[in-house]
Amino acid sequence: MTYTPLNLQEKFGLFSDQWSPRIVARLNDYHIKLVKLEGEFIWHSHAETDELFMVIDGNMDIQFRDGTVSLKAGEMFVVPKGVEHRPSSAQECKILLVEPAGTINTGNSAGERTAQDGVWI
Amino acid sequence: MTYTPLNLQEKFGLFSDQWSPRIVARLNDYHIKLVKLEGEFIWHSHAETDELFMVIDGNMDIQFRDGTVSLKAGEMFVVPKGVEHRPSSAQECKILLVEPAGTINTGNSAGERTAQDGVWI
Repeated sequence: MTYTPLNLQEKFGLFSDQWSPRIVARLNDYHIKLVKLEGEFIWHSHAETDELFMVIDGNMDIQFRDGTVSLKAGEMFVVPKGVEHRPSSAQECKILLVEPAGTINTGNSAGERTAQDGVWI
Repeated sequence: MTYTPLNLQEKFGLFSDQWSPRIVARLNDYHIKLVKLEGEFIWHSHAETDELFMVIDGNMDIQFRDGTVSLKAGEMFVVPKGVEHRPSSAQECKILLVEPAGTINTGNSAGERTAQDGVWI
């Protein structure tokens, strides 16, 4: 049987909209998602879960109420559950997220920036 | 407050032994681990969990009883729970694993290749 690897850059090539997570894999009850970021997101938190950010291509900041972490390709950061954060990126940045299935991108701040959950690519 | 990104290559630079996972982050009840592989591991499976392999540097194969998946940097694969697999790499390969805290590297095949669990770096 032929098994196919999941190539991240190939998957990123399949969509262009920003701030709209695409699921690429499931790990038990977790989803692996790819997102393209550019500009500034909204402040939000996830009451029930930590959230792993890994930069695949580009640079991003995650702003907290008391500081900021700057990430480049090959770097990651786990935002603890309940901690308010605001992702941003001056230029388009490609990231990978790991979080429980069903986690909503805007957490406690649902609104116009809330993306449809559960979209595979 | 200054937040520090987790740089994968820096972390890989802190250890040299192969087949010995190092924990670099916790995401809820999951661990993010780094491992250096070279040569062939043993056949094993994990009865309770899927296991995510992501190649950071190099090339590796994951052999199954009915086929093989070959992964290079920027590629990943989720081995479903209960599925026998044997990782291997002709030259040293640096990978990232995501799996529940407490997952043992040799799964159901504990023995001389079993690494100490719970080692952070």
